[in-house]
Amino acid sequence: MGLKNTRAGNYPEWYQNVISEADMAENSSSPGCMVIKPWGYGMWERIRDVFDEKIKETDHENCYFPLFIPLSFFQKEAEHVDGFAKEMAVVTHSRLAMKDGKLAPEGKLEEPLIVRPTSEAIIADSFSKWVKSYRDLPVLVNQWANVVRWEMRPRLFLRTREFLWQEGHTAHASAQEAEEETKRMLEAYRDLCENTLAMPVLAGKKPEHEKFPGAIDTYCVEAMMQDGKALQAGTSHFLGQNFAKSANITFVNKNNESEYAYTTSWGVSTRLIGGVIMTHADDEGMVVPPKIAPYQVVFVPVIKKPEDAEAIMNYITKTAAELKGKLPFGEKIRVKIDKRDKTSVDKFWEWTRKGAPVICEVGMRDVEGGKIMVRERLKLGTPEGKEIIASGDFAATIESRLENIQKAMFDKAQNRLEQNIRSDIKTPEEFKKYFEQSNTWIEDGKQGKVAFVRGKWSGDANSEELLKAMKITIRCIPFDQSGSEGVCLLTGKPATTDVIYARSY
Amino acid sequence: MGLKNTRAGNYPEWYQNVISEADMAENSSSPGCMVIKPWGYGMWERIRDVFDEKIKETDHENCYFPLFIPLSFFQKEAEHVDGFAKEMAVVTHSRLAMKDGKLAPEGKLEEPLIVRPTSEAIIADSFSKWVKSYRDLPVLVNQWANVVRWEMRPRLFLRTREFLWQEGHTAHASAQEAEEETKRMLEAYRDLCENTLAMPVLAGKKPEHEKFPGAIDTYCVEAMMQDGKALQAGTSHFLGQNFAKSANITFVNKNNESEYAYTTSWGVSTRLIGGVIMTHADDEGMVVPPKIAPYQVVFVPVIKKPEDAEAIMNYITKTAAELKGKLPFGEKIRVKIDKRDKTSVDKFWEWTRKGAPVICEVGMRDVEGGKIMVRERLKLGTPEGKEIIASGDFAATIESRLENIQKAMFDKAQNRLEQNIRSDIKTPEEFKKYFEQSNTWIEDGKQGKVAFVRGKWSGDANSEELLKAMKITIRCIPFDQSGSEGVCLLTGKPATTDVIYARSY
Repeated sequence: MGLKNTRAGNYPEWYQNVISEADMAENSSSPGCMVIKPWGYGMWERIRDVFDEKIKETDHENCYFPLFIPLSFFQKEAEHVDGFAKEMAVVTHSRLAMKDGKLAPEGKLEEPLIVRPTSEAIIADSFSKWVKSYRDLPVLVNQWANVVRWEMRPRLFLRTREFLWQEGHTAHASAQEAEEETKRMLEAYRDLCENTLAMPVLAGKKPEHEKFPGAIDTYCVEAMMQDGKALQAGTSHFLGQNFAKSANITFVNKNNESEYAYTTSWGVSTRLIGGVIMTHADDEGMVVPPKIAPYQVVFVPVIKKPEDAEAIMNYITKTAAELKGKLPFGEKIRVKIDKRDKTSVDKFWEWTRKGAPVICEVGMRDVEGGKIMVRERLKLGTPEGKEIIASGDFAATIESRLENIQKAMFDKAQNRLEQNIRSDIKTPEEFKKYFEQSNTWIEDGKQGKVAFVRGKWSGDANSEELLKAMKITIRCIPFDQSGSEGVCLLTGKPATTDVIYARSY
Repeated sequence: MGLKNTRAGNYPEWYQNVISEADMAENSSSPGCMVIKPWGYGMWERIRDVFDEKIKETDHENCYFPLFIPLSFFQKEAEHVDGFAKEMAVVTHSRLAMKDGKLAPEGKLEEPLIVRPTSEAIIADSFSKWVKSYRDLPVLVNQWANVVRWEMRPRLFLRTREFLWQEGHTAHASAQEAEEETKRMLEAYRDLCENTLAMPVLAGKKPEHEKFPGAIDTYCVEAMMQDGKALQAGTSHFLGQNFAKSANITFVNKNNESEYAYTTSWGVSTRLIGGVIMTHADDEGMVVPPKIAPYQVVFVPVIKKPEDAEAIMNYITKTAAELKGKLPFGEKIRVKIDKRDKTSVDKFWEWTRKGAPVICEVGMRDVEGGKIMVRERLKLGTPEGKEIIASGDFAATIESRLENIQKAMFDKAQNRLEQNIRSDIKTPEEFKKYFEQSNTWIEDGKQGKVAFVRGKWSGDANSEELLKAMKITIRCIPFDQSGSEGVCLLTGKPATTDVIYARSY
């Protein structure tokens, strides 16, 4: 009953299969855009709820800023960049009307509008009106919004022309405070990835050539996918006074002097769901971490004779009701009774491909014996994956079972990450040879052929060029630096900085 | 300390003053779009949470559909409408690049894309892929999204080029089921308006000329603003098979025949916040119904001597902590301690203008006497608006106090609505004279000069023209019809249908 493609067979096709078989999203008739379906959107809702709580705990407030940014907001940036060209959706007309029997754009705008690719510019414009004195600082806002980037090779969740995200934007009275904010929110992302998505990450700073345009420093969290490639899971930017200078965000400080504010921005997107898929899904389909599963426990009635239907449904209803007060992870448990007009086998495999953490099959024998068959998606196909539990013990074990699954998923991924960071590659020759191999599936519990290399980097100006030629990237400069001396794996020059090299999405 | 403009003095300016003094939203540098600020966005979050729960209770699932709709999706509609012209944002280019030192759109799209003004067309396209058999029906989805309509006279919350909303879209196997859905969701809107926003509404059907294009029937809820004008608060459309035919949503029914599905759509938007303002705000500023107040209880420390600060803040912290377990309306209470570096008088008036339901001032005398000064925004300026409570009684009264405020706000608005529906106008002459007057503020507890008229309508084809000439509209054909015979107030012809006539936003 597995997917058409396996991870070992055709990894990119396997990824598409997981999404379509789990019914999480699909390509739409709107080119390059996706339809996020309930099972995929439900995961985004959970991510949003968890992170929104964090945003508010850390004193940020939600706002909403315009979708459209006047073209002139990009003029200054363009003048500073050689060969400036950005793939962005441009609105040029404000009306649709019939012209010789054909529908056509009319009402040309005086100034074209850009559909926001990110909102630093338009938010900085608002900040410039809100901030007058040091008393108005810090400004700590966030928005949950859609953004558009004209991707030429769209892939569901990973790279679509429109995607959903949160973008935090803050302004501060000092560089130190803004830097602290940047790092605090990066830490919030690490926590989100690891403790909510069960997706371990490496945290660090981006090299100069990978920084967000206009940032002083870009920090990031990077996850390892099952093919050994890296996925940038979230970024947090310290923007210094750069955006404040373009948008004129000034304030009168305590010494009564006018000063530019220091700003930050940080974001994570629906791309995280792509990361969750490539961290946890297997050859049977999706495996959803309990914390973000739209349904954590699914009941599948197994009705062999129509006359048993009522007894089975009553038994399920009663058992499901006992879960009501349960609070795995301190939240209301999410339970589904699948009453659809389909066979129990079809239902079982559907929920398996969707990756519901716990599937409970209930037939007449279970009703009579006061039992419930509990199957854990993570352990599918193993003897421990199937357990018959007395109904009296059922509710009591579900809470800890979900918590254990969440932990087991993290541990498995963490183990994969740790096993697949090579730090024993010490020369440019070995390094080159290593990355001449293609990325393939990292078999569970084994070391993959190609994944991450932790090694030295001299920071030379030609690094970007060398990296491009090898089709690899520097994912980050990890916070935990050894400081030891060594040889740059790109140039062979002496170097002390440790970086993470990898191919990436 | 009132607003610059009063309702009686200059109602439209008063509306703007309320929003800006409550710091709910502002015009942005993106023409016609608004920035929704935390106090306004917080209300939208509450509305969203309450209604999202209702959506899920009624078995709908959230999805997300693309922002962009290919132009060709509008071609068919345009061919059926004489002089078709729609004010919509049209994306024609996918790149921004420098051309002779000036930034310009490049990368012309083969097919222009429309920024969704509503999503029936693109969602019907998805439905056509999802629905094959009666077993796939009903499809019940909803999305929370931004939409764009190129308004020429934007007004904050009421009419902005971009706004936020939810749009529900469903497909069913029978007309009856779809009609039931349409009415069920209208009832959900009535409940939302009345029980969450404390904004009474009239529910009914739109006349033919006010229907959503493509709908068989459009149902609506209509609220009365304080100037006697109507605000359409929500609509629910029974679309019959019209959209199913354009998008080819067919299914094999139980008799093994292919049939077009029956669809519905329904939405409410950030416009509701405009309705809340014009239902509840007064000449001192905003008054927020407790159910949607971002903060329901605000503590303002009154520190006259710096040495008292610690004792006062400790007392407030302790008192606020006692509110933690309180669940007004069955939800966690939302409490704010205002610690900002401002005077207590400034803070008090700021929260008054923002319309926080309960403001608690705490000074050293209160600490020493074990008291708390509780002020209810709704009763500002009246002797009952200020009450000194023993701190031991405080937490116990807050829950019921908030519930009482919510109820009092609804009752006040309900009373206004009931008093201002004229049903004693029986001839076209009286009717004409009545609507020759301008709309002005309806003084609290009094009958305004012009508001709603409930009277007969013959349904004549020239009605729209006659209404336009008088600058009035038919808001709805209420569900509760008397069936009595009378005279059409527009044409003087015999008529039995009761309608609501009013000016509107």
